[in-house]
Amino acid sequence: MPMPQVPFDDRGLAYGDGLFETVLLRDGQPVLWEYHHARLSKGCQRLNIPLPSARQLSQAWQAPPRAALEVLKLILTRGSGGRGYAIPNQVAPRLMTRRTPFTTNETHWREGVCVRMCQLRLGHQPLLAGIKHLNRLENVLARQEWQEPDIAEGLLTDQASNVVEATSMNLFWSSEGRLYTPYIDRCGVEGTLRAALLSEGLIHESRLSAAALSSVERLWVGNSVQGVWPVRELRDAHGSRLAAWPRFKADPLQVAAHRLLGYPGTFLS
Amino acid sequence: MPMPQVPFDDRGLAYGDGLFETVLLRDGQPVLWEYHHARLSKGCQRLNIPLPSARQLSQAWQAPPRAALEVLKLILTRGSGGRGYAIPNQVAPRLMTRRTPFTTNETHWREGVCVRMCQLRLGHQPLLAGIKHLNRLENVLARQEWQEPDIAEGLLTDQASNVVEATSMNLFWSSEGRLYTPYIDRCGVEGTLRAALLSEGLIHESRLSAAALSSVERLWVGNSVQGVWPVRELRDAHGSRLAAWPRFKADPLQVAAHRLLGYPGTFLS
Repeated sequence: MPMPQVPFDDRGLAYGDGLFETVLLRDGQPVLWEYHHARLSKGCQRLNIPLPSARQLSQAWQAPPRAALEVLKLILTRGSGGRGYAIPNQVAPRLMTRRTPFTTNETHWREGVCVRMCQLRLGHQPLLAGIKHLNRLENVLARQEWQEPDIAEGLLTDQASNVVEATSMNLFWSSEGRLYTPYIDRCGVEGTLRAALLSEGLIHESRLSAAALSSVERLWVGNSVQGVWPVRELRDAHGSRLAAWPRFKADPLQVAAHRLLGYPGTFLS
Repeated sequence: MPMPQVPFDDRGLAYGDGLFETVLLRDGQPVLWEYHHARLSKGCQRLNIPLPSARQLSQAWQAPPRAALEVLKLILTRGSGGRGYAIPNQVAPRLMTRRTPFTTNETHWREGVCVRMCQLRLGHQPLLAGIKHLNRLENVLARQEWQEPDIAEGLLTDQASNVVEATSMNLFWSSEGRLYTPYIDRCGVEGTLRAALLSEGLIHESRLSAAALSSVERLWVGNSVQGVWPVRELRDAHGSRLAAWPRFKADPLQVAAHRLLGYPGTFLS
């Protein structure tokens, strides 16, 4: 299948005027689709872009799978035109999809990962917080802060020095046996795995300052494609160790999350 | 000439990972090109995208003009690929251009315009402030706040309630005979007309609170394509008049700016 193209005057290219979703396909069927659909719908409302029909969206998984696990990337732009930032009178959104085979990182599931703090602080923009829009330069810049292959993710704080998320994953921590994730009301993306865990009452929203991060009981990063990675070590933006956590004997967050994703749920040593 | 296209995996489309310039061409030659080039160069440094050579860039105005005035839009993306937000090992930036005939709005030059305050507040992100990157959803959302054709621009404040710019123009005001423009250090775009006026010492950078806006001596919006529009009336985000200014007898800012752009410089009544 040839790769879709967009013309020069597509507003997704010109202004990042659109949304995307990255969906795990298992045996050709989308996982947590209702949460992806809900986020896409919320994004369309915020940006005032017509939401494609369920039938249009489901075209993306009509072809037979090429692998047991695939990643479906879906991009929806406002389409072409308009004078400058003003939107066209007649909007014809452009929906494009692409599927690529995917392999999970079982070592990260089992052994946990090393993460670092990013220097970039996310700006506050409540109108764009939560949705998965195409304006992702903050993530791109943050991801350029490190090249070391042993660092699996970078953690992002906001202008108020609260921890928000990782560059492409949500963040989870535990305190006194309860599981938490940061509010995504000023910046950041509401991941679909996070949404599903919240919806089932398994995690709770809270705020966590960067200063308090090193002393949480446990820390995880995760999303709906990769699953959940326990954090074993946290470094600052200069590479110095801030904290380390022992390998978990049991992992309630990973078990719950992987049950939702259809991944193996526990890696007891 | 067919419209350029970009593939699905172009990072300009995927993440807004790129820059653009909108350049006035007079008789096929770019106006204020050194300032456009300087801003593009600064943007490439900030985003870590290789800057195309002067020869590559100047290809955009090698074809003969189709009109005395044209607008050249230039988009530079980081090119294709990379896993997620991480940039590819080999970056092949994509440079695309398009020229369209342009007509000035002489009524706006002569009579001035009505502008309104936008409700959206620009988020602070110093790493992206000033450069003309492709993450422009704040501008797109702000421009959706009004449809009235008699409103020529919307003014944007930041999270600290300072006035920053208009949705697609810079802002200028006068106080005790001196000309000012807001600092663009936390958010907003450093327009090339603004840069040229600063470089010539004709205007000065300062801060202006939204509360103080109504009581400035004079107010203007302007950019390197449209020139300078005096503001005759300022409305709030609900359409109520906040302030009005008489038609200027002489306009030192418009004279100076239009001299730089090659436009007629004064519209004395």
